Amino acid sequence: MKIRVYYEDTDAAGIVYYANYLKYCERARSEVFFEAGETPQSASGYFVVKELEAKYLSPASLGDILTIETELLEKRSASIVLLQRVKKEASLLFEMKIKLAYLHQGRPVKIPEKIYRLVSAWESGE
Amino acid sequence: MKIRVYYEDTDAAGIVYYANYLKYCERARSEVFFEAGETPQSASGYFVVKELEAKYLSPASLGDILTIETELLEKRSASIVLLQRVKKEASLLFEMKIKLAYLHQGRPVKIPEKIYRLVSAWESGE
Amino acid sequence: MKIRVYYEDTDAAGIVYYANYLKYCERARSEVFFEAGETPQSASGYFVVKELEAKYLSPASLGDILTIETELLEKRSASIVLLQRVKKEASLLFEMKIKLAYLHQGRPVKIPEKIYRLVSAWESGE
Amino acid sequence: MKIRVYYEDTDAAGIVYYANYLKYCERARSEVFFEAGETPQSASGYFVVKELEAKYLSPASLGDILTIETELLEKRSASIVLLQRVKKEASLLFEMKIKLAYLHQGRPVKIPEKIYRLVSAWESGE
Repeated sequence: MKIRVYYEDTDAAGIVYYANYLKYCERARSEVFFEAGETPQSASGYFVVKELEAKYLSPASLGDILTIETELLEKRSASIVLLQRVKKEASLLFEMKIKLAYLHQGRPVKIPEKIYRLVSAWESGE
Repeated sequence: MKIRVYYEDTDAAGIVYYANYLKYCERARSEVFFEAGETPQSASGYFVVKELEAKYLSPASLGDILTIETELLEKRSASIVLLQRVKKEASLLFEMKIKLAYLHQGRPVKIPEKIYRLVSAWESGE
Repeated sequence: MKIRVYYEDTDAAGIVYYANYLKYCERARSEVFFEAGETPQSASGYFVVKELEAKYLSPASLGDILTIETELLEKRSASIVLLQRVKKEASLLFEMKIKLAYLHQGRPVKIPEKIYRLVSAWESGE
Repeated sequence: MKIRVYYEDTDAAGIVYYANYLKYCERARSEVFFEAGETPQSASGYFVVKELEAKYLSPASLGDILTIETELLEKRSASIVLLQRVKKEASLLFEMKIKLAYLHQGRPVKIPEKIYRLVSAWESGE
């Protein structure tokens, strides 16, 4: 997934605002649903973020084209752990380990088979 | 209503991003509901933006404290027109005329009496 | 220009937050610069928003793919007026007339020839 | 520091978008500078985020009033580690450990004495 950095993403320090890397990573997670004709929030449930660990290695700037890579690190019955990287060409700018739990009406439930197949797209670290 | 400009509000041009003045004005509109113990979206309906005309006079910067003023220009049975101003001390930075329609389940309805009393707080241009 | 609606663009009303259509339009304006290998803010100057008039016709929702169209309405020596439309397939969701002035170090200046050629891409209403 | 949740902070899931807790925490960090009559980015340098670890415990919703608490966990010559908490009354919603490095013109430098005194406001976990 490729993302262009626009004015809205930057701040007065001239670089991408630190919270916006989380937006980019969420776009990549949601896009897998959209491209499969699904929505991230369906009748069967939805993922919520439980924990994340992020490293900021180098800043992105206005006009940069960034690549978001997502890799499935752990697959449990009711949660997954992903590694998401934001790169500018070969250079790694941002890296985040994120734990997502699957909920239905606010309570943790087993991830449905259909959703499991979707997130398996990340097994190879696309 | 007073608002501080934080990094998230600014962009790489070093000033407040042009869409964010609309956020400031919406905060002021919603705050009237919150302070009355209501929510902007209730069982009786909600306002949606139909039209706006904005003038950008002078930019705001990181750390500025802005004042948002709201004045009721027109009051009809199913819509209102407001004039909202963003000021830095005596200086006018941004001005917007905004038309809001009242909807219930997606269809225009008469603004309930309780809501009319709330928005009347803007008659004097607080 | 095509834009996907992600969670970050929506609000608790379940639709795209009203200020975010301005973000989409700005992306389209900046993209013309990026694709020409330029930046919107260069040594010769930059555009700033002076006025806008917007109409909200129909809301966009999570997962929608939107098209942004930009048309040059007026071309003066130091300013331009654009008409920008946000569509979902054939349906018009949002429309904005926006006046941009060209500045150099905070003062209005004649738009350089190179920039004029860039914005002329919008003459045909791409 | 108290923060009201507005529409712009929420998403189509009806709760505060996960990246926005980072915005709230940054506001609290910057406010210490503003209240001392300083700016977060001065001639002597500025802080940049290097790492963070966040836990999402319970979601915030439209209209909530949140309290941001900041506590200084580590104080080194060129970096600090903070613990920041977002609470709704007594209930903890979000918690983040964040490492900030002090830079001048892009390179790590010793935190100036004046800045050290500012961040010491967080020693008691205000």
